[in-house]
Amino acid sequence: MSVPVKDILSGNVRAAARLMRDLDDEIPAAIRTIKSLYRHTGRAYILGVTGAPGAGKSTLVNRITSLLRSRGKTVGIAAIDPTSPYSGGAILGDRIRMQQHALDEGVFIKSLATRGHLGGLSRSTIDIVNVMDAMGKDVIIIETVGVGQDEVEIVKVAHTNLVVVVPGLGDDIQAIKAGILEIADIFVVNKADREGAEKTQREIETMVSMGEYGEGEWKPSVLSTVAATDTGTGELLEEVERHRAYVFQESRIASYRREKARVELLEILKARLIEKAVKDLTRHGLLEPILEDMARKRKDPYSIAEKVADHSFAFRLLHGKKPPAAGGKGDGR
Amino acid sequence: MSVPVKDILSGNVRAAARLMRDLDDEIPAAIRTIKSLYRHTGRAYILGVTGAPGAGKSTLVNRITSLLRSRGKTVGIAAIDPTSPYSGGAILGDRIRMQQHALDEGVFIKSLATRGHLGGLSRSTIDIVNVMDAMGKDVIIIETVGVGQDEVEIVKVAHTNLVVVVPGLGDDIQAIKAGILEIADIFVVNKADREGAEKTQREIETMVSMGEYGEGEWKPSVLSTVAATDTGTGELLEEVERHRAYVFQESRIASYRREKARVELLEILKARLIEKAVKDLTRHGLLEPILEDMARKRKDPYSIAEKVADHSFAFRLLHGKKPPAAGGKGDGR
Repeated sequence: MSVPVKDILSGNVRAAARLMRDLDDEIPAAIRTIKSLYRHTGRAYILGVTGAPGAGKSTLVNRITSLLRSRGKTVGIAAIDPTSPYSGGAILGDRIRMQQHALDEGVFIKSLATRGHLGGLSRSTIDIVNVMDAMGKDVIIIETVGVGQDEVEIVKVAHTNLVVVVPGLGDDIQAIKAGILEIADIFVVNKADREGAEKTQREIETMVSMGEYGEGEWKPSVLSTVAATDTGTGELLEEVERHRAYVFQESRIASYRREKARVELLEILKARLIEKAVKDLTRHGLLEPILEDMARKRKDPYSIAEKVADHSFAFRLLHGKKPPAAGGKGDGR
Repeated sequence: MSVPVKDILSGNVRAAARLMRDLDDEIPAAIRTIKSLYRHTGRAYILGVTGAPGAGKSTLVNRITSLLRSRGKTVGIAAIDPTSPYSGGAILGDRIRMQQHALDEGVFIKSLATRGHLGGLSRSTIDIVNVMDAMGKDVIIIETVGVGQDEVEIVKVAHTNLVVVVPGLGDDIQAIKAGILEIADIFVVNKADREGAEKTQREIETMVSMGEYGEGEWKPSVLSTVAATDTGTGELLEEVERHRAYVFQESRIASYRREKARVELLEILKARLIEKAVKDLTRHGLLEPILEDMARKRKDPYSIAEKVADHSFAFRLLHGKKPPAAGGKGDGR
């Protein structure tokens, strides 16, 4: 039984949760549904919140959610962070879920744990964001640790990216440089009541000032918050609004949409390609012998991957032939 | 100019560093070299060290390295952790590299930062481990935060995996459950001089005891260390040795080698497939129109990915035809 498209579009929470589960299990009916849903996406405002475990991301997301709710906005949260109480929630069932919004129908929370899946985290996150978007959520928050390749890629689907840091971790500034800097639209120095907050803020400002920004280009701002006491979160949301206005400029929004499409396509394609390749290799009884040959060092993975990628599986691997030229005489005539 | 295979096999540091760089840049000559090197791999003992930022992984790795060096072993370190001083080293140049081993020819340190690459982190890590292995390093340590999908997959190439936790983070135990548990051969409660160390150790032991282990199967052990004062590291290395003896049992080692081959093949294949797909789509001028169609919601990424994955690019996408049946009449006759 497939989940009806109209149930998702009407915002049915139960249907959405079921669809997300079915997508994770790669149930064909669910994939058909998400295909139909795609054209109903693109309405939500997507906010990325990235930061190391312990930076207080969850508390901050909690506060932002409350503020948005008080303004009548509905919110979806996709949490990719094993140390987050949301993800904890995913693991422990409903027990330790974000208590404050647990009974609020206007908030949909979905946690993603790292899975054994080949396509994994990125594709799942894209699926979840798209389902929430189609449900009509006004704002979708992607919460992530931002360490892995996947996490850094995935937040590129966000309109606005917050990078949350805490004071006093000098090394963090270096860590930020490693790839997070380029995704940050707004830096948030959280736990700003701690010693060293001003220093951290100054360091980030210095770092930002060393970047090069074109005429009219957004220059990352640096704000301080104490999410635990709800300090500075209102100002933060104002800054998010300011960035939103920037992104939605007529000259900018098309390039954002293109970039979002790019990340979506590549991540979904990546997952599909490897799934298909493994399925094909397995079905034709090729996978195990290849692994055996590799283990015995009779074959190397680089050459195998090249072969598999360079040609369609059926031709090169099964028959040792090149596929017909792209010119196209090959269709059986 | 390609890096000669013999220079890597003789352990030439400069040649190895150059090869790693060339592999990262996907220089064809470098890929040819790594293909030839693959059959010289499989001699090193690979140790995974996984833990959240701040768990003291780097200090621990430092201590383990010193111990191994004092026993005459050569060591390679691949650090995938943006908060690590090694990775810091990668970002800042040589300035803040692991000071103690910086001048030791018997230690080769390579840091991996999250990159814009499509294939990314996993493939790079595999490349680096293979180069170090071919160089003749006795032990290769992979240091990782273990949060992303990639990081969890990649440590499966290790013979032995340490999971490092610190006391007093009750949530961490939950986090461990999220996917790290299955990779841990040995849990290390580091900073064990801190309050709550015993409690944390007991909690992990309880968690481990709830797992099911077959006859003769390894049951993760839980050890305490204070890496900063070099306390417990000797015992840790003994436990690693004990696990090494377990993995190298005649009945086990083949399945380890097969699993290592599986991870290597899938990660390299994943990278290759998406690179090839993007190159093909781009070369035929298909990528930009697809993204445009997606941005305008005229196409959905799920259907496109399916099409690209299901058939060879040349046929389906360029000619709207199905490829010839796998039976093989298609080779132009």
